[in-house]
Amino acid sequence: MKIKFITTGGTIDKIYFDDKSEYEVGLPQIVESLRDVHATIEYEVESVLRKDSLDLTDADRELICQRVEADPCPRIIVTHGTDTMVQTARMLQRIAGKTIVLTGSMQPTRFRVTDAVFNIGTAIGAVQSLPPGVYLAMNGRIFDPNRTRKNREKNCFEEYESPGK
Amino acid sequence: MKIKFITTGGTIDKIYFDDKSEYEVGLPQIVESLRDVHATIEYEVESVLRKDSLDLTDADRELICQRVEADPCPRIIVTHGTDTMVQTARMLQRIAGKTIVLTGSMQPTRFRVTDAVFNIGTAIGAVQSLPPGVYLAMNGRIFDPNRTRKNREKNCFEEYESPGK
Amino acid sequence: MKIKFITTGGTIDKIYFDDKSEYEVGLPQIVESLRDVHATIEYEVESVLRKDSLDLTDADRELICQRVEADPCPRIIVTHGTDTMVQTARMLQRIAGKTIVLTGSMQPTRFRVTDAVFNIGTAIGAVQSLPPGVYLAMNGRIFDPNRTRKNREKNCFEEYESPGK
Amino acid sequence: MKIKFITTGGTIDKIYFDDKSEYEVGLPQIVESLRDVHATIEYEVESVLRKDSLDLTDADRELICQRVEADPCPRIIVTHGTDTMVQTARMLQRIAGKTIVLTGSMQPTRFRVTDAVFNIGTAIGAVQSLPPGVYLAMNGRIFDPNRTRKNREKNCFEEYESPGK
Repeated sequence: MKIKFITTGGTIDKIYFDDKSEYEVGLPQIVESLRDVHATIEYEVESVLRKDSLDLTDADRELICQRVEADPCPRIIVTHGTDTMVQTARMLQRIAGKTIVLTGSMQPTRFRVTDAVFNIGTAIGAVQSLPPGVYLAMNGRIFDPNRTRKNREKNCFEEYESPGK
Repeated sequence: MKIKFITTGGTIDKIYFDDKSEYEVGLPQIVESLRDVHATIEYEVESVLRKDSLDLTDADRELICQRVEADPCPRIIVTHGTDTMVQTARMLQRIAGKTIVLTGSMQPTRFRVTDAVFNIGTAIGAVQSLPPGVYLAMNGRIFDPNRTRKNREKNCFEEYESPGK
Repeated sequence: MKIKFITTGGTIDKIYFDDKSEYEVGLPQIVESLRDVHATIEYEVESVLRKDSLDLTDADRELICQRVEADPCPRIIVTHGTDTMVQTARMLQRIAGKTIVLTGSMQPTRFRVTDAVFNIGTAIGAVQSLPPGVYLAMNGRIFDPNRTRKNREKNCFEEYESPGK
Repeated sequence: MKIKFITTGGTIDKIYFDDKSEYEVGLPQIVESLRDVHATIEYEVESVLRKDSLDLTDADRELICQRVEADPCPRIIVTHGTDTMVQTARMLQRIAGKTIVLTGSMQPTRFRVTDAVFNIGTAIGAVQSLPPGVYLAMNGRIFDPNRTRKNREKNCFEEYESPGK
């Protein structure tokens, strides 16, 4: 069962150069992560964007949707900054017939203590197990993007009751 | 959606004291792992055994089955040593109506490079998404215990074709 | 033998908040580092500045010198950004009678792979062993600030032959 | 200034294979450690023994002394298990004209939280700075082997007042 990773940037891919430079979005960390944990899944990685999710434009989101739609793989994980992950997830709902799981992290992959590898694990467990649809895998939970938001104070994702919000 | 963790020992829970002592199975590492990654799932942990899986007796496996069966939670993750994980998984198949996922790790949780947190993530993603049954979550894959074995040379789990084996 | 740590910022103290924010200089990481490695030295920490070393002004450097000079402890480690560490070291040479070791790191302390804790170790080993004077402890070496520069291409410190520079 | 590392085993070099095997003393971790921290010191590594220090015999200690004595390098770091590090240090005191620093760790190098890399740093800082003699570099301190012991309850090294002990 093959999994396609589409990477768009965000904290999960942030690396660090030196004093002079700012902390930047680097190459997808997913390949190194999967090697470190001895994952034997069949997978492909496509880097579509390398941006903080707050900097994503409508055109960027459109590009992400087109790439996910065009991809023949029925199981796709999109790594994404957390701040607008829900927004992109909702746009991806127009795509039928694919299991799409978005994930990212609050701490960069290269940190000693990070949620990145755990979140990738949750997304991988979910994408192989769920029927077609769009999901978020964050904080160990599987979220429906229609009833989910990032709580910036608590620095985690949460479900909200009224879907009208 | 609540998840129950039943811990039995194995590499995932191995800690280290000092020169004098051997590397030993310690208290379940799962609580610290879930805190580090900011998991917000509702969960409970029950430590049933603290053994290498090669040392598990028939009575031990019977005990694990009884605890899983008695537990009211319909979604259970069993952390377990890898060497006889498949054997325990097959015994657990007698239990109906529960989604049971076994996981563990090849490197102890406390290592700088470890598959432990990733495997826990995969198990958590799977246990919330799969119908009742018994599964293994290792190497980023979801395995059916009836067609799975640990390949000791490659140090990973693999599916085998002939289910009669 | 007591050691005083004077922290000024730089990569060694860089932490990360989230998508929205930049990577920032946080509170001194030294306390957590020394606890993690079970250091039993007697020490004190004073946070004088929290800046990238490229942003240090003459007034900032003057402030650092004043604090080092005023401190009664004869063994002082200054943690500092790497880009202008040599410059500050040379200013500190006006202080007599103290062993002063500057250190910092190329990768933040919180990274999984970092030189921060190693460099702190080298500085601690040196500050207890060397006669009064000003030294840099980087890349496992003890440098004389009068003949040292940061090689930005190789991302390390190096000695240069002509002390006239 | 060249440094020679003579490795003898102990916790610092302990690696882990799998469920089946015990935690074992592996190849010297020092090379990987020095690469990770971008050390640019000139150095050589010689693996003399791969044992827990409690298993060292008189013949083993004699071998360590002979190798240290025979080595032309005037600055030598001996990595060693902590339980009998003091004993070996005292034997090494028969060697004149060399700066010899013993170090090791309470937690294996490969752990996420370990004192190994810090202790190596302290030893490297000390070996370049101290006059000929034999020293222990542990817990961020430089110890005289004649007045030092491992406190097993506190799991650290300490000085004791009466050198007659």
